[in-house]
This record gives sequence, structure tokens and C-alpha cells, in this order.
Amino acid sequence: MKVGILGAGRIAATMARTLNGMKEAEAYAVASRSLEKAEAFARANHVEKAYGSYEEMLADEEVELVYIATPHSHHLEHGKLCISCGKPVLCEKSFTANAAQARELLDYAAEKKVFITEAIWTRYMPSRKMINDIIASGELGDIKMISANLGYELTDKERMLRPELAGGALLDVGVYTLNFASMVLGDDIVKMTSECVKTDTGVDGQDAIILTYRDGKLAVLHTGMWADTEQYGIIYGTKGYMIACNINNIDTIQIYSPDRHLVREIKVPEQITGYEYEVLACRRALAAGKLECEEMPHAETLRIMEWMDALRADWGVKYPFE
Amino acid sequence: MKVGILGAGRIAATMARTLNGMKEAEAYAVASRSLEKAEAFARANHVEKAYGSYEEMLADEEVELVYIATPHSHHLEHGKLCISCGKPVLCEKSFTANAAQARELLDYAAEKKVFITEAIWTRYMPSRKMINDIIASGELGDIKMISANLGYELTDKERMLRPELAGGALLDVGVYTLNFASMVLGDDIVKMTSECVKTDTGVDGQDAIILTYRDGKLAVLHTGMWADTEQYGIIYGTKGYMIACNINNIDTIQIYSPDRHLVREIKVPEQITGYEYEVLACRRALAAGKLECEEMPHAETLRIMEWMDALRADWGVKYPFE
Repeated sequence: MKVGILGAGRIAATMARTLNGMKEAEAYAVASRSLEKAEAFARANHVEKAYGSYEEMLADEEVELVYIATPHSHHLEHGKLCISCGKPVLCEKSFTANAAQARELLDYAAEKKVFITEAIWTRYMPSRKMINDIIASGELGDIKMISANLGYELTDKERMLRPELAGGALLDVGVYTLNFASMVLGDDIVKMTSECVKTDTGVDGQDAIILTYRDGKLAVLHTGMWADTEQYGIIYGTKGYMIACNINNIDTIQIYSPDRHLVREIKVPEQITGYEYEVLACRRALAAGKLECEEMPHAETLRIMEWMDALRADWGVKYPFE
Repeated sequence: MKVGILGAGRIAATMARTLNGMKEAEAYAVASRSLEKAEAFARANHVEKAYGSYEEMLADEEVELVYIATPHSHHLEHGKLCISCGKPVLCEKSFTANAAQARELLDYAAEKKVFITEAIWTRYMPSRKMINDIIASGELGDIKMISANLGYELTDKERMLRPELAGGALLDVGVYTLNFASMVLGDDIVKMTSECVKTDTGVDGQDAIILTYRDGKLAVLHTGMWADTEQYGIIYGTKGYMIACNINNIDTIQIYSPDRHLVREIKVPEQITGYEYEVLACRRALAAGKLECEEMPHAETLRIMEWMDALRADWGVKYPFE
């Protein structure tokens, strides 16, 4: 499968490296608004073709999937552009800046009958099934609560601070904590309770979020752009608990007895970067003629965007284009 | 120092074992409402004297400090009884069932000029100073957020479920998470945001709490009586983070770099049970003629009770005697 990468930033390079390590897909093309930048990227990352405009790459008939690697403030525009050219899309998370944009993009893809899916890699990884299999086995008893966090010191990244780029911790890193909760406990929440501390620029600098589920489970999440965190996702049951180490790219799953002794430790399979699973999911879905991935259905993408809209509304964090 | 233990339950036995291991204090007496129970306790726990009523023990002139080991629903009554007899008091946490009771007990102690302090052991332990010294050194950079949790599967303890005994997770175990936050970040909070899931009996079964500090720090806490947790207290700074392992009795302090690598691990000093530090603090305060311990001033005890009152008010958890 020939993949075209739209955007030439850090995450685009990670995708190129991933594709270079895969036999099922290849880093075929890259497009940037600057031909010079695209060519430099192509050389540095072993990409066959370089285009100085997105439109040129999208006109290339050999491109079978476009990976959108631009900031989420631009996903609606770039997603629609790809779909208008009939190109299947793997769109980096957060899917868009808000639920209205997500709805517009998904409606447009449905109208044009073009495949699109959100590149929230944790949904596609083997760790997801491993964790849910352990829960289903009953080893931890009844699950009562989970916690998860993801924070990085990111204040040197201007994009994070700018409202017009949909900055803030939530859409960039907090989204993983919400996805972790959704993957483990589902989506039947009756209440979201939260606090945020804002940056001087008016976006969320750090957040704490409580999800209350209809069945009495709680998810306790925190995220931020001011400090690195340990990145644990912890699942508490009546017979023990499980620590998923690094919810952004789970490498180890630890099972503990109630008295806090490590019972066993499970490593996830070796991977290239972890991005290969979302690419493979796209390949499977496209081969089957589907318009979405079962790993991250459109309804789920929309739901997470709606959760983030509700959180931002509570905090009074509004982007200038909203 | 001769200590009299008021109550003969599990925690009373832990205190007797502690005193038996100390050279500065001794397990001198125990009192229970049943002489038989007191005598069995005294035999099993190497306590010199056994009394079949609290009043009899309090009449013993040799008793220099009384440790109240009854449920917190009875602390006001038993505290006042001790003070009326002029006996200094080390009162197990939670100090009382609510802030009004705490105020009544502290006012009575002040009026009678008798020493009293709350036996919230973590306040008196060496780990407290060790943690705060690391923070003050700047090694972690600016502290931005903390998290802490303490939960046990305690549904087999009837006391935990009964409203008339001031049951629920908050007063029994959640209190440690609030104390951890208070010890690390102080008390200048502008908002408490929380959720609780109640038991069939109407007390709090599990809780999630966000404390928002005036300076923009957040404390994210959870507690419960339905599942054991990993008991980590984590302090996040701009240059790294620290994990305090077991916030109920910190044994190890781990310092991590921002990229989640263990930099160093610090063990706390060997201890008998950990209760010895609160006993030694009482001994120092009494020798200095003080009416409170600097490790847990009365104002601080009252503040934590007020926080718990506010949380319960939000949740609609009311005890029948309130």
C-alpha cells in the first residue's frame, strides 16, 4: 500500500520510519507547502516522491492512503481536501478541533463514500486486546475504578500555547487519557467533573477529569503540558489491580495482588514505532471495502470529540475560530 | 512514658506492639468495656494493666498519655472523657466524625488545658521531611501537580458500611490522601471538586477528589473501600517527578527524570510499626509543656475535618447523629 504523508513535521517523520519498516506498506510520497521542505524530508526519511503542495500529491494516482500529520486545527480543511480527491485518510489525533468539525468531516466522507479513520494509535495496538482479555478473564475481580494520566513539559512548543492552533493539553495529550477510559470502561458516563488551570494564552495548561459511569465505576484522569508524568493507566478490581505502563504507547502490563505484590508482568510484542498497527488496520478496512475501522469507529471518534467539547465548555476554553 | 490504650481492637494491638518495641514509652494499660476482653488483650499484647472500664484506667494516676483506639464515631465522647480526667490524648484518625465535633473537642481541651493531638501517623513520620526537603532542593523543578490514592477492599468490615459509625471510605482511608496533599502542597485551596459513589447503606464507597490551589497547582486524589489500590503519592515537577510508595506508610521514595527513568530510590529508616513517631512527638510536646504537636497542629486537624465535611455535603452523605 502506497502511503502519502501530508505534512512534514516530527510526527510525519515517525510515520515515514514506520512505513520504511513495514512490508505491507511503503512511504511513497510526502507533501509540504514548501517543495524544499518536502524534498529535504523525502531525502532524510527515504520517501520516494516529494510534492510542494498537498493538491499535487493528492493528484498522484498511485497514492492509496493519505496520512494527515498537520496540527489538529487544520484537520478539517486537510481531511476535506483529501476526500474531495477521493483519497482514503488516516487522520492524526485529535481528529479535529471540536465535534462540529468532526461531524462535518465525517458527513463529507460519508457523502463522498471515502474511507477515513482517526490515527489514535493506542486503539489499534495489541495492548488494547491484551488488557481487555485480562479484565474479561475475571482475574482482577469486578473492576471498580481506573486512573490514567499523561503529561509532558511542552511549553517550548509554541503550537501548544496558541488558541488559534487549538492548543492546550487536552487535545494534544489529554485525549489519550479519555481514550484509555473509553477502551477500558466504555462510554456510558452519566457525568464529567473536571478542573483546568489555564495558560496565560487562555488554553488549558493542566487538567483533572473525573468520569462517573452509570454502573458506579469512576475514571480519574489528569493531563498537562507543564510537567512529565509517569503515564500509568491503572485498573482497580476487587481481586487486584493492573498497571498499564505508558498509556501513550503501552509497553508493559503489570498485574498486582491486592496486597501490592507484582504477580506477573507482560510485555507487548516488539514493534517498529507502534504506528504500524493503525496503518495495517487501514489496509484491512480498505481491502474489505469498508469506510471506517472497527478499531476506532466514527461514532467513537465523534464521542471523544464531544467529551472534549464538554470539558472545554466547562473551563471556558474557546478557540478563536469557534 | 506510660501509655494507656483506650479500646482493644486491631489498631490497639498495633499500638501495644509499637510501645513494646520502644524504650521511651511503654504499653502500661489497656481499657475495654469488657474486663475479660481487656485482660485477654493485655495477656496477648504484653500490657501491664487491664481495666474493664475506660473510667477506671483514666483514674490510674500512672497513665501519662491515653491513645484512643475506638472508631471515629466515638472519638468526641472518649476524648472528652480523657480530658475531663486531665489525661493527655493521642486520638486515632479521623479526629472526629465532623468539624463541629472536632471544634467541641479542641475547645474542651483548651478550656481544661490538656494536651491532645490527632494520631495521623504520616504527619509524624521521617518521610514527611524527606519529601519536603527534596521539593525544597529544587531537584524536581517547580511542582505543578500531585496525585495520591488509597483504597482497600474493606466490605467485610461492617463498621465501614454503617452510617451511625461514621462509615465510608473518606474518613477511614481517604483522609490520608487529603493529608498527603496538605503536607506537600499546603492548604491554600480555592476549590474542591469531587464525585462519590455511594454504598447501599448511604456512605461513600469510592471517591475522586480534585483540589485546586490558588497558585494553579492541582491535587488529584482517589479513595475507596471496594478495591485495593497501588497507594502511590506522586509529585510532578517541571524537572521530574517523585513517587512516594504507600502514602499510608511511605517505605520508599523514588525520583524519576522527565523521561521516566528512575534516578534514585530512597528508603525510609527502619521502623517498629511507624506509630512510634506519633508517640515520640507526644512525649516531646508534653515534656515542653505544650498542648498540641507541631507536626499536626489543632488548626490543621480542624481544616482536614472541614474539608471532609465539605466533601460529604457535596455528596449528600450525612451521618444519623448529624
